[in-house]
Amino acid sequence: MMPQSLKDIAASLGAETLGDASVLVDRLAEPLEAGVGDLALAVAPKFAEHLLASAARAAVVWPGADITTLGLDGAIVAPRGRLAMAGLTQMMDDDPAYTGHASIHPTAIIDETAKIGEGAEIGPYVVIDAAAEIGPNARIGPHVSIGREVRIGSRACLHAGVKIGPRVQIGDGFIAQSGAAIGGDGFSFTTAGPSGVERAVRQRRGAPLDPPEDGTWHRIHSLGSVEIGDNVEIGANSTVDAGTIRATRIGDGVKIDNLVQVGHNVVLGEDCLLCAQAAVAGSAVLGPRVILGGKSGVADNISLGRDVVVGGGGIVLSSVPDGIFVSGHPAQPTHEHRAGLKALRRLVKG
Amino acid sequence: MMPQSLKDIAASLGAETLGDASVLVDRLAEPLEAGVGDLALAVAPKFAEHLLASAARAAVVWPGADITTLGLDGAIVAPRGRLAMAGLTQMMDDDPAYTGHASIHPTAIIDETAKIGEGAEIGPYVVIDAAAEIGPNARIGPHVSIGREVRIGSRACLHAGVKIGPRVQIGDGFIAQSGAAIGGDGFSFTTAGPSGVERAVRQRRGAPLDPPEDGTWHRIHSLGSVEIGDNVEIGANSTVDAGTIRATRIGDGVKIDNLVQVGHNVVLGEDCLLCAQAAVAGSAVLGPRVILGGKSGVADNISLGRDVVVGGGGIVLSSVPDGIFVSGHPAQPTHEHRAGLKALRRLVKG
Amino acid sequence: MMPQSLKDIAASLGAETLGDASVLVDRLAEPLEAGVGDLALAVAPKFAEHLLASAARAAVVWPGADITTLGLDGAIVAPRGRLAMAGLTQMMDDDPAYTGHASIHPTAIIDETAKIGEGAEIGPYVVIDAAAEIGPNARIGPHVSIGREVRIGSRACLHAGVKIGPRVQIGDGFIAQSGAAIGGDGFSFTTAGPSGVERAVRQRRGAPLDPPEDGTWHRIHSLGSVEIGDNVEIGANSTVDAGTIRATRIGDGVKIDNLVQVGHNVVLGEDCLLCAQAAVAGSAVLGPRVILGGKSGVADNISLGRDVVVGGGGIVLSSVPDGIFVSGHPAQPTHEHRAGLKALRRLVKG
Repeated sequence: MMPQSLKDIAASLGAETLGDASVLVDRLAEPLEAGVGDLALAVAPKFAEHLLASAARAAVVWPGADITTLGLDGAIVAPRGRLAMAGLTQMMDDDPAYTGHASIHPTAIIDETAKIGEGAEIGPYVVIDAAAEIGPNARIGPHVSIGREVRIGSRACLHAGVKIGPRVQIGDGFIAQSGAAIGGDGFSFTTAGPSGVERAVRQRRGAPLDPPEDGTWHRIHSLGSVEIGDNVEIGANSTVDAGTIRATRIGDGVKIDNLVQVGHNVVLGEDCLLCAQAAVAGSAVLGPRVILGGKSGVADNISLGRDVVVGGGGIVLSSVPDGIFVSGHPAQPTHEHRAGLKALRRLVKG
Repeated sequence: MMPQSLKDIAASLGAETLGDASVLVDRLAEPLEAGVGDLALAVAPKFAEHLLASAARAAVVWPGADITTLGLDGAIVAPRGRLAMAGLTQMMDDDPAYTGHASIHPTAIIDETAKIGEGAEIGPYVVIDAAAEIGPNARIGPHVSIGREVRIGSRACLHAGVKIGPRVQIGDGFIAQSGAAIGGDGFSFTTAGPSGVERAVRQRRGAPLDPPEDGTWHRIHSLGSVEIGDNVEIGANSTVDAGTIRATRIGDGVKIDNLVQVGHNVVLGEDCLLCAQAAVAGSAVLGPRVILGGKSGVADNISLGRDVVVGGGGIVLSSVPDGIFVSGHPAQPTHEHRAGLKALRRLVKG
Repeated sequence: MMPQSLKDIAASLGAETLGDASVLVDRLAEPLEAGVGDLALAVAPKFAEHLLASAARAAVVWPGADITTLGLDGAIVAPRGRLAMAGLTQMMDDDPAYTGHASIHPTAIIDETAKIGEGAEIGPYVVIDAAAEIGPNARIGPHVSIGREVRIGSRACLHAGVKIGPRVQIGDGFIAQSGAAIGGDGFSFTTAGPSGVERAVRQRRGAPLDPPEDGTWHRIHSLGSVEIGDNVEIGANSTVDAGTIRATRIGDGVKIDNLVQVGHNVVLGEDCLLCAQAAVAGSAVLGPRVILGGKSGVADNISLGRDVVVGGGGIVLSSVPDGIFVSGHPAQPTHEHRAGLKALRRLVKG
């Protein structure tokens, strides 16, 4: 980025400065890797030693930091460090995957019935199918495919190789990382007789199942699609399946990490956060602001209330009421899960 | 779809009707979202309230439903609801990802030695390598790549961005969702001395391992490929690796969900069902009709008998005989797993 | 491959022969599938029965095998079987995804400021952005995209649909399987007030969380990229995120299987091995030669020492010292984990 003064950066963040506010910086850096001219990030006292060892003359520091002792000429004070990080990194992001100029690559194949908003930057070998509509200021990377009758709001950013199936509806400010696949067919099969799962659940304790009369899986087709609200982000190679009859629904502000699975008919409330490799099975309903830790899973056809938090690796097999923090496999309230682990440790020690 | 009468739909499904069988419908809908002209889906008594609140005049109902009380003019009776769903959704699927017309997009690059069957619909920027053979009536989405000497049977449907490696052999009726990667190299490495895993297994209780003399991983190349039977479906962004010496083998009728891993040399018996994010490690052998719940895993070099069911999140570390339902980590017969959870809860309560 | 004598093959492997070393073979095969003219692989005594039933006249056998009894004309003795497998399979790999001839497909779009080394084989519909530099003898499959200012060393092999984000730096001998996505944005969000996770951790035992004042997630942008050493392999549809301020770092010789997640700011020491569906959360640091079993996970901001081994499905929630083998959820030293399972089984039995 262009060099900026601490004063100007602090003004954009609504933050205060300490010492010489005219110091110019042109790059963010971790303290130990920062040079003169960099703005070292040290938003908590635990980074004091790193700052002392740093060549940086300017830093983002915690409230109450003594910049003279820390060897700095000037600083920006971040009362809530990670929020300052959000502002700072956004300010310094030069968005290197795109040119910043509106342009449609000549190899992009856009159906004549599709509508592309003003300001779009569309990369090579993109394919946009009939009657799709994309809002203004989209940035679309190479090899993206967008199906028939898809609608996407303004400022969409679809990175390389994103695949959006037919009829998916998406709000404004959508970001999809490379390889995300949205709107594929749900995984829904049935057998003519009771399925292996139904039979397993009913079987007597430990008695082996007999072979079924007919093990053939009949396919339930997905006639719904996917509806996604505003300001949603979906991570690299994550998958969101179409609904069976109605759409799978993702609320405003939901953030989804890499390699996450969202099954058919799922409903995610606003501002849910799904960490890497989490999975939500078919027809599960999550309230607003549910947080799924990395590698956690939610069984099909259950519901999680608002503000539920599932710890990393937690496997949720039954519904959870509002505001409960659950962990373990099967997931249970975290304090109960911990009591179980503790009891087991005591048991081992004898 | 075109409007159809309840009578005609019931006839296709081999089902009975109740009330006025001449009612026309042109869309499936959930009861609460159904309007006049829709066919509400209410295949079990638990949906009765929703039907009462619905604007729908026609529905698919459970055996014994009283359509007058439910406020319907006519109904189709589905003795086994989910099987009816399979027939109904298939009937109403207009397959929006494809045009339904045979055509090869001019940007598709098809090697002159490849053979494409009649009726194929091949999308933009598809790449088909030398000596590949694809049966009649294939539908191939944008950005699909098909390697050298691949053979695929009739009616294949390969959605956007599917990648099929060289020499993969596939039967009829194959479906691959977007981004599935089939036939990549197996993950097989070895060290000159005992590997870290071998050393860890042998080490004394809790004694830390010393560093090895040489930690370099030597790569075992994959000379096999993948053989897939008839009527197999593989989900979005799932991966199936090539075998080392012989092929990795997937039996007829196997269904695989999204983000599933099938390792090198694995054998999957017919009609296995692998739910999202399941994984089968190298050289494991699964009998017919094994069901792997979501996020479950099967260790390398073990075998699961016919009709084994693994609960969601179950981690199977040793072989399982025919027809057993296992759960937990490590997976054990489900009734034993539950007895353990119960004993632990009793222990916590004191 | 061309027929070769046992003598010549053994010489390449630095191995000994038994019996008639002039026997010619042109293919590797498992004993039960081997025919005359194949080289059966039987690197351990457990394969003796298979060899007896085999049509093969030549085999790779274990030290001390009696080839006359086994019905072989000649054999190669592999003192360490899997290391011999590495050499043999490499020797017999005809690399069918590529032609072996330097060539750049006319549909490849290579920015005029990008530099491509000699001997490159670049497939159809590849996109290489401005100022990218790729070393000599690269093989790049169809639909690969390489971002601005990426640098890749010599002998890179990027299979179909690999996506490499801007500024990623990669050493020599890199292999990426189909669909791998490297250098996407990290998953880093923050709320204006304490997040749901912070609040959950602090809450009283089991008391439900109140809704927050403001649940909006603010995005921390990724300004770092990814730095990858020499001789690294990354599996199909795996994802490696860019760092926030500095790069995410992957050491020399690291091998990563399919569907693995490597979060932002992670550091992987040399020769780490990450099995399928493993995940390393943001800012975790792994020492050299750490082995992550299939489906295992490492929490954010912790460190694993050198030579740590995590068993399949293990969820590591706190730092682990050098050389320790851990298992379970939460992961603990494996002998303690097993003692807990054993104690629980005793408890159930009463």
